[in-house]
Amino acid sequence: MTTSAATLDIVRLEVDRALREFVDRQRPQVSAPEAAPLISAAEDFLSTGKRLRPAFCYWGWRGAGGGNDPAFFNAAASLELLQASALVHDDVMDASDMRRGMPAAHRRFQSLHEDAGWHGSAEQFGLGAAILLGNLMLIWSGEMWRSSGLPPAALAAAQDVHDHMRTELMCGQYLDLLEQAHGEGTFDSALRVALFKSGKYSVEQPLRLGLVLATRGREPWIDRLCEEYGQCVGIAFQLRDDILGVFGDPLETGKPAGDDLREGKRTMLIARTLAAASPAQAAQVRAMLGDPALDASGVDRLRQIIQETGALAACEHLIQEYLDDALRSLEHAPITSEARTALAELAVAATSRRT
Amino acid sequence: MTTSAATLDIVRLEVDRALREFVDRQRPQVSAPEAAPLISAAEDFLSTGKRLRPAFCYWGWRGAGGGNDPAFFNAAASLELLQASALVHDDVMDASDMRRGMPAAHRRFQSLHEDAGWHGSAEQFGLGAAILLGNLMLIWSGEMWRSSGLPPAALAAAQDVHDHMRTELMCGQYLDLLEQAHGEGTFDSALRVALFKSGKYSVEQPLRLGLVLATRGREPWIDRLCEEYGQCVGIAFQLRDDILGVFGDPLETGKPAGDDLREGKRTMLIARTLAAASPAQAAQVRAMLGDPALDASGVDRLRQIIQETGALAACEHLIQEYLDDALRSLEHAPITSEARTALAELAVAATSRRT
Repeated sequence: MTTSAATLDIVRLEVDRALREFVDRQRPQVSAPEAAPLISAAEDFLSTGKRLRPAFCYWGWRGAGGGNDPAFFNAAASLELLQASALVHDDVMDASDMRRGMPAAHRRFQSLHEDAGWHGSAEQFGLGAAILLGNLMLIWSGEMWRSSGLPPAALAAAQDVHDHMRTELMCGQYLDLLEQAHGEGTFDSALRVALFKSGKYSVEQPLRLGLVLATRGREPWIDRLCEEYGQCVGIAFQLRDDILGVFGDPLETGKPAGDDLREGKRTMLIARTLAAASPAQAAQVRAMLGDPALDASGVDRLRQIIQETGALAACEHLIQEYLDDALRSLEHAPITSEARTALAELAVAATSRRT
Repeated sequence: MTTSAATLDIVRLEVDRALREFVDRQRPQVSAPEAAPLISAAEDFLSTGKRLRPAFCYWGWRGAGGGNDPAFFNAAASLELLQASALVHDDVMDASDMRRGMPAAHRRFQSLHEDAGWHGSAEQFGLGAAILLGNLMLIWSGEMWRSSGLPPAALAAAQDVHDHMRTELMCGQYLDLLEQAHGEGTFDSALRVALFKSGKYSVEQPLRLGLVLATRGREPWIDRLCEEYGQCVGIAFQLRDDILGVFGDPLETGKPAGDDLREGKRTMLIARTLAAASPAQAAQVRAMLGDPALDASGVDRLRQIIQETGALAACEHLIQEYLDDALRSLEHAPITSEARTALAELAVAATSRRT
């Protein structure tokens, strides 16, 4: 087993424990028993996930001298609450039906309404409940971070990074809405959105949080490492996401095949395809992309164009280049050699994943 | 000028200042210039409001010995961010068009999309942007509270109350969705929702926060006062809201006449009406309530029934009774006599308001 595979196991176990304990502590705070479905939905959502963000955070922390402290894992697990909140709201904004192999939260609550035969619009009920579920997990992410048990001086040192990450995430998601509505549709504009919306809070900021929690200061080498390694891995991570959104196996991704195509996402992969497409190919892509009724043969045709234009190969090549850059940035970072190995393996795992 | 009117002026000035300074500090955190409309929307939303929650908090704080400390006003102003976040999301959930005399946030962003002639659904863009705006203000409310500058010991003493208030607000809003979907529609069930959804975080918890911040402890008299005064004023406040939602002057409330009737809200006022209505009246109410196309004559007819059944008079009478109970609860509370007077006046102001 590689260092990182072994680590992902430790991180997963500890993060699972921390999230379970946190949600259990919240239960008595909820005075109205009818609100229990909100808590169960949070629990179900939090029970899965790759725990990649806590893992990046962990190897920052370990790399700068931190140990296997349960308080640290509480703080790192709070990143999963932030992520869960973003996904629940994202699915509402994109009107997605599935997430992690299960109905998206708004569909779950819509079904609750339909199955019970309640009054009014089941869809509007689902929408409202999912907004509230996302809010609850957003609030909890801040609370779990703050009440982690880490020394106040460590939390205080990392607080600016934490606050910035959260504000940046919301602004990044807004950029994504703008890009879909009136973006240039170029590779560079898609890359910028990917970085703001997902890259930074998936890799760069979790890593920075771990490093700053351990060192209790924001030294220049930390920012350099996080920008270089974090942004490279973040972009490669998102490129992999773009590819999985089109070519991923539904059994592994938990989302229907070609879902990103039906939603019409203007990803880096699509930008690359359009840039290299013949006029006839480009017209076909434009006609099919974003069609909610796109069937399996339409998905196949789009996949074929993405391959024929060389966009798929180009994105795979870019992933490798960003990965190489990321690995190089680790070479001279003053972190433990164990952390250097683990971060290299994590970068590979995060960018070659199938889910 | 009464103590409370003078106080509302001080609180308003200080809260306005605190919110302006906070948003100005956030601006450089937003690295992408295109996200500026999100910040402007927050700024516009925060520039109005009755500042009642900070005022209840202030008189708790003053009543237990606190002074006019700018750090306190920062903490109290964070309650306006929480409230703004809840209103923006509420308008999405209720599909309301207007708020405070302006288009609701999701309509504002929808118009931005329409006016610019962007691609895709303007409505979906407005929905997404409003969710993100609400999230941003929700995150900021926690950040503003924590970075207020109050001594860590004061914040630590009040942290549980703060956390509980936020979780309770989300669960209370979920109860509201449930009540609309399959509630009993009785006065008692509407009252319970009103208390969870609005009463507690409008009066009881802000007051408790102020008291606990000043005393740095949660003594039994604090909980007693907050439960008695806070819940009574909270319910009377919500009853006034119910009445304004039907009989309010649009120029003062900033919402169209009879908006609550068109949305079909199952308020205490409506529950009382239905309980006292003749079968013919009840049938008319049921047929018209929640009809989005309800016109002025329909609104007039419903208003007439609400008056004829005695429900309006009964709710006005209840407001007075809750107010009397609230004033009695102040009599023996160990707070300064200035605070006792101000809280009495605030209770009157909050329950006799016209906006």
